Amino acid sequence: MRSQLEKGESFRDLHRRPGIFIIPNPWDVGTARILTASGFGALATTSAGYAFSRGRSDGSIGREEMLRHVADIVAASPLPVSADLEGGYGISPEEAAMTIRLAASAGAVGGSLEDTSGDPERPLIDIQAASERIRAAAEEAARLAFPFTLTARAENFLVGRPNLRETISRLQAYQEAGANVLYAPGLSRKEDIATVVRSVDRPLNVVIGLAGLDVSLEELQDIGVKRVSLGSALCRATFGTLLAAVAEMRGGGTFGFLKGAVPFAQLNTLFRDFHEKL
Amino acid sequence: MRSQLEKGESFRDLHRRPGIFIIPNPWDVGTARILTASGFGALATTSAGYAFSRGRSDGSIGREEMLRHVADIVAASPLPVSADLEGGYGISPEEAAMTIRLAASAGAVGGSLEDTSGDPERPLIDIQAASERIRAAAEEAARLAFPFTLTARAENFLVGRPNLRETISRLQAYQEAGANVLYAPGLSRKEDIATVVRSVDRPLNVVIGLAGLDVSLEELQDIGVKRVSLGSALCRATFGTLLAAVAEMRGGGTFGFLKGAVPFAQLNTLFRDFHEKL
Repeated sequence: MRSQLEKGESFRDLHRRPGIFIIPNPWDVGTARILTASGFGALATTSAGYAFSRGRSDGSIGREEMLRHVADIVAASPLPVSADLEGGYGISPEEAAMTIRLAASAGAVGGSLEDTSGDPERPLIDIQAASERIRAAAEEAARLAFPFTLTARAENFLVGRPNLRETISRLQAYQEAGANVLYAPGLSRKEDIATVVRSVDRPLNVVIGLAGLDVSLEELQDIGVKRVSLGSALCRATFGTLLAAVAEMRGGGTFGFLKGAVPFAQLNTLFRDFHEKL
Repeated sequence: MRSQLEKGESFRDLHRRPGIFIIPNPWDVGTARILTASGFGALATTSAGYAFSRGRSDGSIGREEMLRHVADIVAASPLPVSADLEGGYGISPEEAAMTIRLAASAGAVGGSLEDTSGDPERPLIDIQAASERIRAAAEEAARLAFPFTLTARAENFLVGRPNLRETISRLQAYQEAGANVLYAPGLSRKEDIATVVRSVDRPLNVVIGLAGLDVSLEELQDIGVKRVSLGSALCRATFGTLLAAVAEMRGGGTFGFLKGAVPFAQLNTLFRDFHEKL
């Protein structure tokens, strides 16, 4: 296993190298190992994917359980892991800083924080409070013995406030507060993403699989995006397969979905070899 | 939640009603809830599917962890759950009986036992020892305060001894020893399955997704099969989707696999409603 220092440096350097990279999101140990064996350079957890694998809705998993999940993914793979830390599990800067410390203890070398409140009536915290949260998290990250890549998310598009000007103001403030990577989930137009890239001075993460954004990796690279994450999309694709299989069995009583199944021996050997190598 | 008595009776009665039924195999809480919401009458765990979701090979999970998983699936769903108890986690009849007791404590109302040894040199135990194991398990099941449906498996096809005569001798002996359901994974010909049905006097379970068996539910019903399980096939179908998504992203840098993903809001609402109803 690589040390947390090595993994932290490796993850930071992925953002410094030229070109774009995909950071895929596993939701359990098995998918973490498959994605590791597939040659990616880092993994990111997904709060929604993990919640769905536990039969829960997104946002209903507490900090302790989510950090156990982060530790589980870290233990499953030699790759650097960035943790989806949702809204930091607490409004205050102190709580956000504590969440960064706990994520680092769980083995993560990066993490993302949203500017959400958890209150459905007023889902976003204001830009000032959100910046203080990022500043406290960045200061905590700087006290760690390895590079911790902090991603700050502007959530206004996702909570029904699709105002690009607000997105940019928020991301600029989070950059100022010390975020290493910026991220605005829910942008659905390539031009808007390009405008964001031009308006900030940090690597931008774009999520695929939300809000109908229909672009290729090359197009995203061409407009200057550095990192592409999948959120819960890979997980939701597998639920699509499960629902289609159920519909086929309960409809016509056939099992054509088996054609897409990985053969037992292939999967069994892959996991046996992976486990022996760890 | 229904009592274990109600679930035990309901599961037993599924085998007494006319016609065939599918008992699908979830591998985590999320898939258990999706399959429950899909209208099936019972669930069965899968040792291989669970192992794969933990990035391990089949057979590498011990009794304690596997029974925690069984309890997890039982807690996830109001449906009766039958537990995949592999080789009973011990050669002796006493160990097999203990495994039945522990599975019942975990909330299962049924379970399957293989006639395997766990020894790769001599993978099958002989018919006499296997029958004693089934007898001890059936006697233990009879002491429970609810009907526990015991499934006995003849594994000779799966361990490279594809002798139908041996399969039938084994299943007849297990019937005699008190098994409620019989099961011979690895049969790949419909005629062989029909021969087994005619040779025994208990409901027969057939697994789909192994050994290239290519039949419809109706064909299986026509030859007298009572129950169809999927083993790890649904799980392996979702790994197929994951590998295809990875190949697409790393190949052409496109994200066409998203077309098959369940929309975020749909999955989130389904799990929120499910959780609130429990």
